[in-house]
Amino acid sequence: MPKIVDHDARRRLIIRSVWSLIGRRGLAAVTMRELAAEAGFANGGLAPYFRDKDEILLAAFRYACEATERRLERAVEEPSGLVALRGLCHELVPLDDTRLLEARVVVAFWDRALYDPRLSSDYEATMQRWRTLMHMYLAQARAAGEVTTSTSDEDIVETLFAVVLGFQVNAVLTPEITTPERQIEVLEGLLASYA
Amino acid sequence: MPKIVDHDARRRLIIRSVWSLIGRRGLAAVTMRELAAEAGFANGGLAPYFRDKDEILLAAFRYACEATERRLERAVEEPSGLVALRGLCHELVPLDDTRLLEARVVVAFWDRALYDPRLSSDYEATMQRWRTLMHMYLAQARAAGEVTTSTSDEDIVETLFAVVLGFQVNAVLTPEITTPERQIEVLEGLLASYA
Repeated sequence: MPKIVDHDARRRLIIRSVWSLIGRRGLAAVTMRELAAEAGFANGGLAPYFRDKDEILLAAFRYACEATERRLERAVEEPSGLVALRGLCHELVPLDDTRLLEARVVVAFWDRALYDPRLSSDYEATMQRWRTLMHMYLAQARAAGEVTTSTSDEDIVETLFAVVLGFQVNAVLTPEITTPERQIEVLEGLLASYA
Repeated sequence: MPKIVDHDARRRLIIRSVWSLIGRRGLAAVTMRELAAEAGFANGGLAPYFRDKDEILLAAFRYACEATERRLERAVEEPSGLVALRGLCHELVPLDDTRLLEARVVVAFWDRALYDPRLSSDYEATMQRWRTLMHMYLAQARAAGEVTTSTSDEDIVETLFAVVLGFQVNAVLTPEITTPERQIEVLEGLLASYA
């Protein structure tokens, strides 16, 4: 009987081990051979799991999103309202080395997603999940009287999303200005303006 | 006597003619041969002007920034205060096909700039120029009583920048949600909150 292998779990394991290599040097600059070596495989050993670099990028993007969602669960045990909204925003902005590494992968992913429907549909689905979450928290925050602004929920969600995406770029490319403190201050300012 | 050629002008001319090809298919997917053909050169004809694709990307990024600045000058004849601040934000967000094409080039540029100091220092210089402009308009807006918020100018500039960067991504990747109307509404909401 052939050994049953959980391909999805194996792919995640591989990504975890090549993750920092991708973040450090950029996926474009590393070869499949280097990625295989980093994961402890012989040359060509990744072929059963990933057909090409775009599949690796897709898996890396999913891995970053899952990591974000795991952190969110830990950060807010019973997430609700403004506390949960703030928690989600904080998990989405690159405040530490882990999240700066994630930001690099996310930017690489954007670039490829512009021309690859496989990647862009995954991006859309993830954004949709997080938008839905934000809308839910926002509705709870309104019900609790924590948010009373006349600005529509759609506009608030769109503003917060644009800000956290923009920070992915500038926290890496203009780190002296877009510091963690600045990012938090901007988010707090926005949330306060919705009170 | 050798013919004097303005290399910089020639490079801009080349970029202008390959611009839509880059935007349509992505620089990674097009060859130097295709770019040369599009610009009316024989294979290898671009070599005196661009050593590699990163130099083309850098020139394309500069071309997009110059286009933005030219549009800004036309949009606000004697730019000052809130009107100028609004005008700058509008020019920086991808509201039409031209700017959506620019957004694609900008996202590709970010990805390469993460690993190439040549590109990242250009990005930093451009951001610095636009931040300075925004600070100037904001100071004028405060002097004119158009902006009275206790939110610091640094936070306002950082917020507006993050939002326009985030829109570069989502106007292309989630266009049904991040429509031109939504982008304008978000910007107006932010500017109104600083009144």
